[in-house]
Amino acid sequence: MSLTIGIDVGGTKILGGVVDEEGKVLEELRVVSPATDVTAIVAAISRLVADLAGRHAVEAVGVGAAGYIDKARSVVMFAPNLAWRDLDLRAELEASVGIPFVIENDANAAAWGEFRYGAGEDVEDLLLVTVGTGVGGGLVHDGRLFRGGYGVGGEVGHMRVVPDGVPCGCGNLGCLESYASGTALVREARAAASTGAPLAGTLLDRAGGDPASITGPLITECARAGDPFCVEQLARLGTWLGEGIASAAALLDPGVVVIGGGVSAAGDLLLDPVRAAFERQLTGRGHRPLAEVRPALLGNRAGLIGAADLARHPVS
Amino acid sequence: MSLTIGIDVGGTKILGGVVDEEGKVLEELRVVSPATDVTAIVAAISRLVADLAGRHAVEAVGVGAAGYIDKARSVVMFAPNLAWRDLDLRAELEASVGIPFVIENDANAAAWGEFRYGAGEDVEDLLLVTVGTGVGGGLVHDGRLFRGGYGVGGEVGHMRVVPDGVPCGCGNLGCLESYASGTALVREARAAASTGAPLAGTLLDRAGGDPASITGPLITECARAGDPFCVEQLARLGTWLGEGIASAAALLDPGVVVIGGGVSAAGDLLLDPVRAAFERQLTGRGHRPLAEVRPALLGNRAGLIGAADLARHPVS
Amino acid sequence: MSLTIGIDVGGTKILGGVVDEEGKVLEELRVVSPATDVTAIVAAISRLVADLAGRHAVEAVGVGAAGYIDKARSVVMFAPNLAWRDLDLRAELEASVGIPFVIENDANAAAWGEFRYGAGEDVEDLLLVTVGTGVGGGLVHDGRLFRGGYGVGGEVGHMRVVPDGVPCGCGNLGCLESYASGTALVREARAAASTGAPLAGTLLDRAGGDPASITGPLITECARAGDPFCVEQLARLGTWLGEGIASAAALLDPGVVVIGGGVSAAGDLLLDPVRAAFERQLTGRGHRPLAEVRPALLGNRAGLIGAADLARHPVS
Amino acid sequence: MSLTIGIDVGGTKILGGVVDEEGKVLEELRVVSPATDVTAIVAAISRLVADLAGRHAVEAVGVGAAGYIDKARSVVMFAPNLAWRDLDLRAELEASVGIPFVIENDANAAAWGEFRYGAGEDVEDLLLVTVGTGVGGGLVHDGRLFRGGYGVGGEVGHMRVVPDGVPCGCGNLGCLESYASGTALVREARAAASTGAPLAGTLLDRAGGDPASITGPLITECARAGDPFCVEQLARLGTWLGEGIASAAALLDPGVVVIGGGVSAAGDLLLDPVRAAFERQLTGRGHRPLAEVRPALLGNRAGLIGAADLARHPVS
Repeated sequence: MSLTIGIDVGGTKILGGVVDEEGKVLEELRVVSPATDVTAIVAAISRLVADLAGRHAVEAVGVGAAGYIDKARSVVMFAPNLAWRDLDLRAELEASVGIPFVIENDANAAAWGEFRYGAGEDVEDLLLVTVGTGVGGGLVHDGRLFRGGYGVGGEVGHMRVVPDGVPCGCGNLGCLESYASGTALVREARAAASTGAPLAGTLLDRAGGDPASITGPLITECARAGDPFCVEQLARLGTWLGEGIASAAALLDPGVVVIGGGVSAAGDLLLDPVRAAFERQLTGRGHRPLAEVRPALLGNRAGLIGAADLARHPVS
Repeated sequence: MSLTIGIDVGGTKILGGVVDEEGKVLEELRVVSPATDVTAIVAAISRLVADLAGRHAVEAVGVGAAGYIDKARSVVMFAPNLAWRDLDLRAELEASVGIPFVIENDANAAAWGEFRYGAGEDVEDLLLVTVGTGVGGGLVHDGRLFRGGYGVGGEVGHMRVVPDGVPCGCGNLGCLESYASGTALVREARAAASTGAPLAGTLLDRAGGDPASITGPLITECARAGDPFCVEQLARLGTWLGEGIASAAALLDPGVVVIGGGVSAAGDLLLDPVRAAFERQLTGRGHRPLAEVRPALLGNRAGLIGAADLARHPVS
Repeated sequence: MSLTIGIDVGGTKILGGVVDEEGKVLEELRVVSPATDVTAIVAAISRLVADLAGRHAVEAVGVGAAGYIDKARSVVMFAPNLAWRDLDLRAELEASVGIPFVIENDANAAAWGEFRYGAGEDVEDLLLVTVGTGVGGGLVHDGRLFRGGYGVGGEVGHMRVVPDGVPCGCGNLGCLESYASGTALVREARAAASTGAPLAGTLLDRAGGDPASITGPLITECARAGDPFCVEQLARLGTWLGEGIASAAALLDPGVVVIGGGVSAAGDLLLDPVRAAFERQLTGRGHRPLAEVRPALLGNRAGLIGAADLARHPVS
Repeated sequence: MSLTIGIDVGGTKILGGVVDEEGKVLEELRVVSPATDVTAIVAAISRLVADLAGRHAVEAVGVGAAGYIDKARSVVMFAPNLAWRDLDLRAELEASVGIPFVIENDANAAAWGEFRYGAGEDVEDLLLVTVGTGVGGGLVHDGRLFRGGYGVGGEVGHMRVVPDGVPCGCGNLGCLESYASGTALVREARAAASTGAPLAGTLLDRAGGDPASITGPLITECARAGDPFCVEQLARLGTWLGEGIASAAALLDPGVVVIGGGVSAAGDLLLDPVRAAFERQLTGRGHRPLAEVRPALLGNRAGLIGAADLARHPVS
């Protein structure tokens, strides 16, 4: 049985696991690591791999990280939350550990994971949209990971959806991420609570009366309990998302759309508005197949599992 | 030398040609055909092919047509300007003519033509954007035509760029096509001329004083002659286009962007504003390669040449 | 008891009435008149006035008409639906009838009517917004009709609410009228019904299966019967209206907002969404009085009654 | 000769002056005062007035302050930059100093100043738009200050011009102030300079290479020297402003539009784009008088002079 390691490098922690050919995670480790110290992250990955490789006969390692990875899956050109600029991460890690590595964008890795072992196991084409702090995306087309001409495609969160709109962390105005991310969800809820909107009262109470204590999970929890304001906030986010996905689908025509990321824990409270907006907004609706909108299945292991599989089939 | 026929089915005419392996058109024919009479179009294509095949030893025929073509390149699911609905055009034509056919979306065929023999000959990834009556698009990724999960991808003109914006022929509000097509160009110029805006005076004079006589080619001609209003109108269209392409590039990360279609005859009067807006708006600019924006090279033969080549390599 | 005549000149008919000092209509007449024949309209008004004046001792006549009326309340500078351009209507009518006239914009006249004898009887400041074919407005400030510097203020329907938005009859893009008029209501409902949206099914059935038979009153009727689609359409219109009124209120700070016009027959199905959007969107909410949003009380007689009263107090 | 005192309360300083019946400032004083200490501000105003009144026989005092002032010109309901909430400033000051006071919104006071002794001396109707840190406004209609139903009208900066647009300090999204204020000017210029846009190079050099050192006056200075980027930035602001004024004019129909505030120091570099956008965007253009757009004449003394005059005619 061929085994590989998948690594998911986040802003504050590194998650690693040994994955078999069926996408099963045999062992998983997690270490804390500061995003700002490049050398420390490389060392932490190396140790984590050495540790796992000591107990499992692994062939290769796949690393998923936020940022722009070059088409050769080697160099991190730019990582918004990590202190990497034009770093040949693959070369450094291979030199340090002595096992083949591939580096991939984290949302791409997650899309691949869901395609191979999750919500897209039955299709050849999927668009993964992850809704967390930001909005990310990855595309599988004709059974192959779509990476774009320079390796930096799939950034569904940075399509502009409102000219002169809400500023985005990327420096532009009006990106989808500015309206459809968990950050936007919390921003809007806090704003409503701060102006004393009566509708936001229950949520504010649950946050101990302090708007700054409102979080995404709290909004989801209140929505599940039936609070109309929180239901509406998730519906609003879902509407933006569904409309944005309709624009993406005009270009990409995905076979299925898979929604992942932390906010997707809200389930149909999020997905139903996504579906309604997508169906209402898709160009040519009625004359073309309507892609199904599904929840992701692999949770926060999607990136790890996908990266491990990409390491096994580095040409996918 | 292997020869194939390429056919480009437009709203009012059908263009056919015999194309060799180097993309050279050996003979070309054009017939007028009403878009609304399905039987007549099929008969006209059949005659045109029979005619050309009588003089050249052709192996196969590729047909490019506006509309949604299924992934098997056989059935026209929907064609906005032609009277086709779920028509198995390939079966009908093969039965009629006795030569293998493939059917493809016209912008996809044109993208493939530019990729193989035109502006994208030197790259593996390109996005073609055609600016004519509407705004169309086709994508080549890793040397293969990107067709989407159901065969209907690449509709760059139907990304929504303005919520609650100008109505589009597709039934939605605020599509890129509503701002960046030749139709939009003429609409805006006529509107300005109708309200007696002094700036539009030269153009109106050239149109004989009748706003309804203003056309796209006339605007381009006046812009070339230095008329500030017409230069500004093309720049405005180019800005919308460049901003829309930046959104598309967030998803697609094209290696190069090729601008074709009738309005692209304006050359750098259109392309320079496209480039400026694209560079200003591309997410992650400065941290990723900037795709070159180039003019298309094959003119209105791109679809014919591309369709012919797709017929030769039906699995591309 | 002082009596005056009020005249309301519409696109297809002229309504006239004798009004007493308490705003009571003693006698009312209606004649059909083509909007395009200037001479015929003037003659029809003259006859109507002569007729009424023959039976009542009237002092003066007030005429309300759509369009731009000069500050002297005499000249119709421009009337979008009537064939008047820089016509001194007052001089023509006084010469013809021999009674003093004042001419006023129809929405201004209606605002004055509601202020004196209707929904604004108890306040000194009101903004009337009429929602019919278009969106009109009139303002009373400190007990006086606000007419603007040139007599053409109060056009709340032509504030731009969406840059590059839906074209308006005035030639601009994105006016409030493009989203919040009865015309917009019908346009959106027909569009949804035409694309076969299941939600619009009940409405479409009620329209005999023909989207073109959908009317504003039918939408209101279905909404009253509880049809979710029609309720939603009115809510959508109301939201645009409430948000537009919030922008207007930033400037005008009205004491109360009165909603009139044909679409206001929908009552709270329209007004509740207006109120919700207005309260959510008003700048400085929580730190300033919130103007009450009320239904108009005088129906389609508001213009007639207001015009009659303005004739009595020509300096108001 | 009747003399009054005008006071302009800013965020960090208080400006006071003795003004005669011709709007001439006989003596002027300036004191620094922290915006957050209510008691200190009241004491500072009292001392300043006592000082001036000791040397001049003044009849009354007018105070202009940012915020919502009640219709009785007495109570500060809310002041965004000052620590005042429902404070009867007039009562406190009259008790402290023993001279009659009137309190007015600062932009209203400035509008009145320009109307009486500045750019609007020759007209009966003007709209003042002040472009500084924010965008403020004041309206004079038929020779009287327009104060709205509750005293809080004229907030032209808080009309919404972009749905879901850039967040405003007032808590809303997409206010005119978010695009047309000095703050927006600096924000956009810094953003461009931060991403290394070559066009912004000259400005960045002038700011010593640090985007954070870019200021409004520096942009104006560079624009005056012909730097295309800075000229473009002012034109962009002017375009937003002109389009916003066109919306305001649909409602208000001002006789003239006066542009004041710090950014108006840019002169025609700002005003020409304002005029062009206003003319292009005004509803009904061609069928109504076009209000002239003029620069303010009284500079930063407009508020002081206007407040002093309002104190003399408290019923204006």
